[in-house]
Order: sequence, then structure tokens, then C-alpha cells
Amino acid sequence: MARGLRANAAEICAANAKDMERGRAGGLSKALLDRLHLDEQRLDALAAGVEEVADLPDPVGEISEMKRRPNGLLVGRMRIPLGVICMIYEARPGVAADASALCLKAGNAVILRGGSDAAESNKAIGRVLAEAVRSAGLPGEAVTVIEDTRRESMKELLSFEEDIDLVIPRGGEGLIRFVAENSRVPVLKHYKGVCHLYVDRDADAEMAVRLALNGKVQRPGVCNAVETILVHEEFAKDLLPKLCKALGAAGVEIRGCERTRTLFPAAKAAEESDWPAEYLELIVAMRVVTDMNEAIDHIRRYGSDHTEAIVTNDYAHAMEFLRRVGSSTVLVNASTRFADGNQLGLGAEIGISTTRLHAFGPMGLEGLTSQKFIVFGDGQERT
Amino acid sequence: MARGLRANAAEICAANAKDMERGRAGGLSKALLDRLHLDEQRLDALAAGVEEVADLPDPVGEISEMKRRPNGLLVGRMRIPLGVICMIYEARPGVAADASALCLKAGNAVILRGGSDAAESNKAIGRVLAEAVRSAGLPGEAVTVIEDTRRESMKELLSFEEDIDLVIPRGGEGLIRFVAENSRVPVLKHYKGVCHLYVDRDADAEMAVRLALNGKVQRPGVCNAVETILVHEEFAKDLLPKLCKALGAAGVEIRGCERTRTLFPAAKAAEESDWPAEYLELIVAMRVVTDMNEAIDHIRRYGSDHTEAIVTNDYAHAMEFLRRVGSSTVLVNASTRFADGNQLGLGAEIGISTTRLHAFGPMGLEGLTSQKFIVFGDGQERT
Repeated sequence: MARGLRANAAEICAANAKDMERGRAGGLSKALLDRLHLDEQRLDALAAGVEEVADLPDPVGEISEMKRRPNGLLVGRMRIPLGVICMIYEARPGVAADASALCLKAGNAVILRGGSDAAESNKAIGRVLAEAVRSAGLPGEAVTVIEDTRRESMKELLSFEEDIDLVIPRGGEGLIRFVAENSRVPVLKHYKGVCHLYVDRDADAEMAVRLALNGKVQRPGVCNAVETILVHEEFAKDLLPKLCKALGAAGVEIRGCERTRTLFPAAKAAEESDWPAEYLELIVAMRVVTDMNEAIDHIRRYGSDHTEAIVTNDYAHAMEFLRRVGSSTVLVNASTRFADGNQLGLGAEIGISTTRLHAFGPMGLEGLTSQKFIVFGDGQERT
Repeated sequence: MARGLRANAAEICAANAKDMERGRAGGLSKALLDRLHLDEQRLDALAAGVEEVADLPDPVGEISEMKRRPNGLLVGRMRIPLGVICMIYEARPGVAADASALCLKAGNAVILRGGSDAAESNKAIGRVLAEAVRSAGLPGEAVTVIEDTRRESMKELLSFEEDIDLVIPRGGEGLIRFVAENSRVPVLKHYKGVCHLYVDRDADAEMAVRLALNGKVQRPGVCNAVETILVHEEFAKDLLPKLCKALGAAGVEIRGCERTRTLFPAAKAAEESDWPAEYLELIVAMRVVTDMNEAIDHIRRYGSDHTEAIVTNDYAHAMEFLRRVGSSTVLVNASTRFADGNQLGLGAEIGISTTRLHAFGPMGLEGLTSQKFIVFGDGQERT
């Protein structure tokens, strides 16, 4: 697949040029056009990504938890593919290569349903990938591009619960809600990441400032960026102004609760709508809390089950926060930005799930597989 | 909960007597009345089952796969409850105790929606369980009985995707299909068990006969009973008549393919509808196959992804059968009747799933949980 992407770069870029031309004529925003754009360099990066996936250990066939039962049976589990996975995405044509590599590596077939903006690019990439799969001796249908990009046809696709095992939508909240609401096939998804950083009473001030900056500023447009900072009142008294100044110096707008504004009057007043907000830009909500319980209550009420971090020197608080916060990634003294398949050591990431069924949090190859029970006997019967 | 069931046996039996009376007046079959019936002895067995679940290790909070990343972060997973689980079942009031024990042990809340035939029994058991939960210092709502047994109210329940995390239906195929077709909440289910026993060319004849008998006769009415026996033609020549005689002597009716009937003329002729049939009684379909490939093709075409077994002395065939058969439990030289949570060592069983998402095969406590990522850092930020 990587070789195919490199060898057919000219053809893929020509197809992409048609999408870009139509996009410009149709008035797509500069940001969307940038997402849509492919050139030799980007294709090379995609191919390199495919090669990285190829180099991951093959999850299929792995046997684990093998145990001997009292009757002598050896019982364990063997990892197997899920089956047919349908990726639904918008204007990023690179998803086709990226997702196909991961799905195939885990032994699955993949159906690619991209948005109409990237229709020509998707067709071209899909053709190249299917041909690569065929030349490796597998059925080319293992990578199938749906060329019909109408919503009604997507609805039909989402009704094929007998034929598709899992749908993974990637894109804006609107697309994801449409998929979730119209699908008879199970959907792995997250709507948004309203991630919290809680600065405990006894916390390292320098670390708190660094992790707040890293979480908010390093890449504000992603789902694991910090959106709300909760500060213990005893930490706040001395150190909240310092924290706010550092954020302000990095260009971050602060929307604070009343107590925040008493300590740092330059902050704007937060409204109720700020607490559940996923800004995805250089804005942060800030609230002073009386203790960790109040912080956890706030997270439960306004969070999105994505990622939360605590900064603390208190061992008992660290362990309690880990245990009681129900989000898919919970960190102690580390940036929320680590909530990512590669950073957590999964080797790759096909998506993030904020529902607990099947996979919770970043999903790598293992999330694209299941396990069956295997039993080695020597004639055992049940009595 | 166990103490509550024993202490309130008289009250529960009185409620059950009302259900039994209405059932008899309504003309319920003897088998259904037997399923519905509760007495002190049955309640005591239920209570003992609850005690067994209580004695299982607590899955919640277990930390696994802890690894150190190059930047010093310690990354692992902590087992957590799924959330709110809805059990939907028919006339067996014991499910209320059994399922509540498992769901609560895994840290979940449970909603019990039993059938109208057992309405009084369910209410009485639910009251006792909720009181027990309350007396243990937990909210009584952690066990909630839905008293409205109309289908429309079930439909409404199945639309609460924001509030219920998982639905597990237990009962006939009709109930399960209704739930699957009407649910917005994920459903863990199996429709039926069309389990195969494949007797390879080089197989121990005595073992083949024993495993066929055990699979078919020991308890024919359950989902892991053998429904079809596939016999390699070279084994069949000498040994099929012996196998058929043994089955016949145990009262099993044989519906065979043409080649089966040539070797054992007393067999009835199998029709196309016999291959996907789940008889759940003393009937077995039998087919002579030319090799293991044909057996595996047959299983793929007619099987239900539940359980399949091979009898063989051939090492390579054993390993290939394990790898290529995609069912949720695959056994070598052992009875299909072992496809059961207790027999496979899960300690308990809340149900069996024949779809690959989240859980595949028998589900114990672990199937009622999920895992979140936990990260121990010392100030790491992402660069």
C-alpha cells in the first residue's frame, strides 16, 4: 500500500487537484482547503505512516490467558479480527490510507465513505489501495470506497447491521451525531473533549503552570487540549494570579468564576455555558474549588468522559482522583495532551471512544479486534 | 442480597403464587409454569448463587498492562464498571437475583425488566434486593424493577441511550429480535447456537462417539448442544454406522445427507432447512464431508458463530481448525457443552455473545466492565 501511494502520487495528486478546484469554486474555507490538499510530500508522509503500521506486531492470532481447568482442559483466548469496519469521514483524504492500513493490519476489511469534497481524491486513493491489496494476494474488496456521497446513501450503509461490524466516524460533531443517530451498526465515537486540569492544594506551582500551558497552548485545536482549569482555593490564594499571567502571556483568554476574578480581575466573567464548552482555541475556563470533591463533582457534571489530569504532591489525592474520575484517560502530574494512542504506547490510533463499551479512550489495533475462546482437550465431556 | 432472599422467602413465594395462579388460569404450558415456579428450595439455590458471586474477586479497580514509556510516564489500565445495565427477560424470576448480583459485583446499576407472567415475583424480588443494597449503604435505585410490562414501555426503555449503557436480553429468539431491532442502546445477545462437531479423518473413534453423545444427549435443550455432526469421508466409511447406532440407542433421530444414508440407511433424509436448524431436542443433522475445508465451509455457511469442536489426532488439523473457525468458542477434542462461563473458568455467566464487539462468547464479570487509561507522571509535557 505504501509503495502504491508513492508510485501513483501523480495520479492521486491530479485527482486531488480536481477536488481542490471544485472546493475553491464552491467557496471552501482556507482551513478546509488545507485539509483537503495533497501533494507528493503529504503522500510520502501518508506512505510512511502506512509503513509504520505494517511494522507493528500482528495482533491477530495472539493467544492469552491460557489456563488449565481442574478437568485438564486448557482454556484461553485467541485474538481475531472484528470483521468489516466502515470509516466515515469528511474532507481529509489521508484518512483513507491511514484507516485502511490499521483495519487491514488487524485482519479486517474496510469500507471507506469520505465526504463529497474529497470525492476524487478518495476514489484515486481507494483504487491504489485496493490494487495493492490484490497484488498481495487478498481480495481487492477488502478496501472498498463508497463513491456515492449523498446522505441518503450513508443512511442505507448504516442500516447494514448484518454486514458491517463497526462504524467509526471521524469529523465534526454534526457528522458524528448524524452517524450515531442513524446507525443500526455499533458506532465508536467521541463527540468532544472537554478536558480538565485540576490543581490540588498541595501542588508544585511551576509544574501546574507548565502543564496548564502545555495542555492549553501546545495545540489548542485538538480534543485532548485543556478547556477548564480547576484550582483548589488554598493553591489559588497565592498562585492563581501567577498561573493566569502565564496563560495570558501565551495569548490565552481566561473566563473565570467570581473567585477567580477576585484574585485576577483581568479575567472575563465565565457564564454557565463556559463550563461544558469545548473551545478548541486559546480560551480557558477557570474555577476555584473548595476541595477535590468539588473538582470531581464539576468534572462529572460538565466533562465529556475524555481526559482529566490532576497536579498534586499528595499521594492519597493522586490515587483517589485516579479511582474516582470516570473519564477514559486520567493522569497524575502529566499533560492531558498525552491522551493519544501513540503517546500511550498503542503504536497507532484509529480513534478515541468516550463510551465504555468495547473500547474506552484511544483505540489502537487491539480496538479493531476481538477475542474468541479456544479450548485444547483430550476427550473431556461434561457431566 | 442472599440474606434478604432467604429472610423474605415467604413474601416472595406468596407473590410467586399469584403469578402461578394467573399463569394456570391463562393456560401457560407446564414447562413455562415450571420456569415460573419459586419455592423455598429454589430461593435458597438463588441465594447460594448470589453468595458465590459475592465470593468472586472484585474486578473493579484492577490495574493491568502498566508500562513505562520512554519519557518516564507510567501508563496502564484500570478496570471500571460499565454503568447502567438493563436486563430484559421473560418468565424466569430467578434472573432478577442472578443478574443483579453479577451487575452489582462489577460496580454497575441494574434495571430489571421481566415479563408480565412473572410480574408479582419480579416486584417482590426487586423490593428485597433494593432493600438489601440500601442496607449495605448504596442507593436502592442501583437495583430497579420496571413494573410496566407492556411492549411499548420496553420500546421506550430501549430508547434511553444516554442513560443505559448496555442491554442484555435473555429469553426466546422472538424477545431477543424485538430488543435488537428496537434498541438504541447497545445489545449483547445471541440468537441461537447451531453448534457443530467435526470428526476428522484421523480421529479416535471411541472419543468421537463419546463427544457426539455428550454434545447431543447430555442436555439437548441448551444453546451449546451439538446440532450438526460433520464426518470426514475416510472416517465415515468404517465408523459412521457405529456413531449413528450409538446416537440411535440414546434416542437421537438422525437426519443425514445422501452419503450418510448410504452408510446408515436408517437415517432420515436431511433437507436444506436441517443445516441451519437449532433443534434443541434429540435430533441431529449429519453430513459426510470430503475434507476439513468442506467442514469449515459448512460451518461458515450454516453456523451461528457460537461453538464448534473438532475431534482429531492430527496436530496440524487441530491448529488450523482453531485458527480458521471464527466462532466464539472453538474446541479440540472436547465437548461443545463446555462453552459456558463457569466451565471456561469465568466464575459466572451473565450471557453469551455471538457478535464480536465488546465481548464474544460466554461473558462473566469482566464482560460487565470496561477499562480506562491511567497515567502516573512527574510533570511530563508533550513536545
